[in-house]
Amino acid sequence: MTFELTKEYVEHIQELIEKEDVSRIQTEMEGLFPADITSLLYELETGGAKYLISALDIETGSEILASMDPDERKEFLKSFTSEEISRYVNLFDSDDAVDLLNEQPIRVREEVIALLEDREQARFILDLLHYDEDVAGGLMQKELVKANVNWTVNQCIEELRKQAEDVGKVYSVYVVDDNSILLGILSLKKIVIAHKNTKIESLYDRDVIFVETYRPSEEVAELMQRYDIDALPVVNVQGKLLGRITIDDVIDVITEQASSDTLAMAGITGDVEEDDTVWRQTRARLPWLLVGMMGGILAAKFISFFEGDLKIIPAMAAFIPIIGSTGGNVGIQTSSIILQSLADKSGLDATVWQRMLRMLAVAFINGLIISLIVFGFNLLIGNELRLALVVSTALMSVVFLASFMGTVTPIVLERIGINPAVASGPFITTANDLIGYGVYFGLAHVLLDL
Amino acid sequence: MTFELTKEYVEHIQELIEKEDVSRIQTEMEGLFPADITSLLYELETGGAKYLISALDIETGSEILASMDPDERKEFLKSFTSEEISRYVNLFDSDDAVDLLNEQPIRVREEVIALLEDREQARFILDLLHYDEDVAGGLMQKELVKANVNWTVNQCIEELRKQAEDVGKVYSVYVVDDNSILLGILSLKKIVIAHKNTKIESLYDRDVIFVETYRPSEEVAELMQRYDIDALPVVNVQGKLLGRITIDDVIDVITEQASSDTLAMAGITGDVEEDDTVWRQTRARLPWLLVGMMGGILAAKFISFFEGDLKIIPAMAAFIPIIGSTGGNVGIQTSSIILQSLADKSGLDATVWQRMLRMLAVAFINGLIISLIVFGFNLLIGNELRLALVVSTALMSVVFLASFMGTVTPIVLERIGINPAVASGPFITTANDLIGYGVYFGLAHVLLDL
Repeated sequence: MTFELTKEYVEHIQELIEKEDVSRIQTEMEGLFPADITSLLYELETGGAKYLISALDIETGSEILASMDPDERKEFLKSFTSEEISRYVNLFDSDDAVDLLNEQPIRVREEVIALLEDREQARFILDLLHYDEDVAGGLMQKELVKANVNWTVNQCIEELRKQAEDVGKVYSVYVVDDNSILLGILSLKKIVIAHKNTKIESLYDRDVIFVETYRPSEEVAELMQRYDIDALPVVNVQGKLLGRITIDDVIDVITEQASSDTLAMAGITGDVEEDDTVWRQTRARLPWLLVGMMGGILAAKFISFFEGDLKIIPAMAAFIPIIGSTGGNVGIQTSSIILQSLADKSGLDATVWQRMLRMLAVAFINGLIISLIVFGFNLLIGNELRLALVVSTALMSVVFLASFMGTVTPIVLERIGINPAVASGPFITTANDLIGYGVYFGLAHVLLDL
Repeated sequence: MTFELTKEYVEHIQELIEKEDVSRIQTEMEGLFPADITSLLYELETGGAKYLISALDIETGSEILASMDPDERKEFLKSFTSEEISRYVNLFDSDDAVDLLNEQPIRVREEVIALLEDREQARFILDLLHYDEDVAGGLMQKELVKANVNWTVNQCIEELRKQAEDVGKVYSVYVVDDNSILLGILSLKKIVIAHKNTKIESLYDRDVIFVETYRPSEEVAELMQRYDIDALPVVNVQGKLLGRITIDDVIDVITEQASSDTLAMAGITGDVEEDDTVWRQTRARLPWLLVGMMGGILAAKFISFFEGDLKIIPAMAAFIPIIGSTGGNVGIQTSSIILQSLADKSGLDATVWQRMLRMLAVAFINGLIISLIVFGFNLLIGNELRLALVVSTALMSVVFLASFMGTVTPIVLERIGINPAVASGPFITTANDLIGYGVYFGLAHVLLDL
């Protein structure tokens, strides 16, 4: 039942657009959901895409625009006048409208708002533009159904009828007093099965979870997941109901968070995508590559102190890679596990000491196995016993040090308010490499009596 | 308004438990949401936690158990008899009940099912136990409200009244024919504002998105996000309505997916958490460390071929780390960006060639900058011009090769059905290292005329 976008279908639609066959385009699109038409639009050149969306009714068109990827939409809307944009934005949910307008140049933004036919929508948007994107206020929409606590169920249903068109999904009705102060919540289910003359007073749930406008979006996401909430009411500091955040917006927060953490771990700054310009990708990647390069230069400088030793035992050079990669791998594994448990936040944190202890036990087993295998390998290929001992002792130490760094770094970063995900990136890997080489050459210098 | 779990509060509750002061425990817990009591339970020792949950009414108790982390719950329930467990599971949503039972030993599972007072619940559970955890059937719950297409709105509301207690959240009513074949959907909003004698026939939405039981959970998550669905109906191959998947379960799928990708990237197999046993953590981490070690041994073997060269120019050894780390960092950056765009799946894929071209342009700029800086550094510290040339040429080649590998590997893995996230892990890093050393020493051998 899912829609599959094939090359043939895209070509077929392209043909219809070239022939300007509006009625057949409309028939074809009737069978599709707006989200499917969005995918189709991505495959057409801008002119064709604009022709297609203009052939559809304004409701479908605005659903399509609302579901578009921000970057694609920004590009696409360049071919629209402010007047055209305003016709679609008129039907948007207010939070989606603000997202779209924030992508536009200020001039377009102001023109669109001025041109909006629905003046309530314009007021909603102006309200929402105040908030940062990454706080509750920036996630909320103004559309919601509220009921005065003194009403009956019947009055509440009347209000629902009036607002049904404006408010997309209704999960619950928010119960407020005469000053719009949030008092509680009433599920649609309860309204449906209640008797019509029942007072809301006697029906609604006073245990309502809400959030203030200034709360960060991660906190909103955590709250909605923790308490399993579909639409979270947003209030100001006085407790006045201002809007609501629906679960689909929070899913976006969660996926964005996950993807930006992954990028941070990979040593990429900012939210870069594969189809960003070469220049933007370079800027996002170069800083961390330079960190790695600086590490490499330091390592080179450091190793060059031991050039004399290397002249005597050149076989020492052969184990530089294994020292570096083992340190890097152990460090990344350890910090990833710590990161994950920092993100979980189930209950009070285990103490740093308990964590260290478990990590060190794992490090001991892993380090021992690796050291022993490498020791065996060294003897097998006929390397000197002393060199074999140095390499394996260095490996063991590197595994311990990298485990230690991998545990402590993310915890410290979190405490001082830096995204701990960067701790798994090139920075920690570079630091681990350098520590590893220090241990290796230091041990060699002492044990090999160079 | 959010609940903060403090050490003092935990100690206070511990005291009440020791004093066996049931009534004060009950008063304290009345102010908390079940999810908050769950966090509190994690901080108590098993006996105290059991005392606490037993002091609460069975509804709250079952909500607490349903919201617990699977590992913690498995441990906790060891102190419960099958009879005790069954009393709580009796009130679970069927999908949560199956999750809990799947954590239990077979004997307990069968006993609990046999002891369930609600025989419909038992039947639901037996139905659901057939399905794998990671397909639509394994995510769905049997609780839903369905309405026959021939009913009136009033009959539908009667049905809702009957089922209101069993079905947790109701977003919509599913419309079926006499054989329970899914025909469409009817939102609660429409039911509330409709007139009581309207036929469902004339009211419901035929454009319903559904999923078959055997579809993988990632597909379910994608579908629900794409079409913005709160509760997705699940059908068998004949189109018969079997259950529904609610959005909160899909959020779990999304976060689990993200965290298992992160772990895969960090070279960790399986879903390991920080508080897992040392042995389990070791098993999850050792395999990839061994891969890295094998790479290191190969590198050692390879470099040892050039021992003669190193004797003549020991400064060559100093640049082994920078070659390795640059290759590793570029490879991880590239594959992470590719991974992200593979996960996005917006529309048809850009061709592999377009991707390669953009990647290579970024590689060219990054490679050039790094090579030039390192070249300058080499001249600055007075290294031979030829060595400086070899190092920078090798760096440039390594950046290109790592970008190529980082682009191709995840795409190929995805095509052959392996989780492409492993492409950013130790495997690709190790491969990049080896390629890098090959280029470096190969170039050196030729250019330095050794």
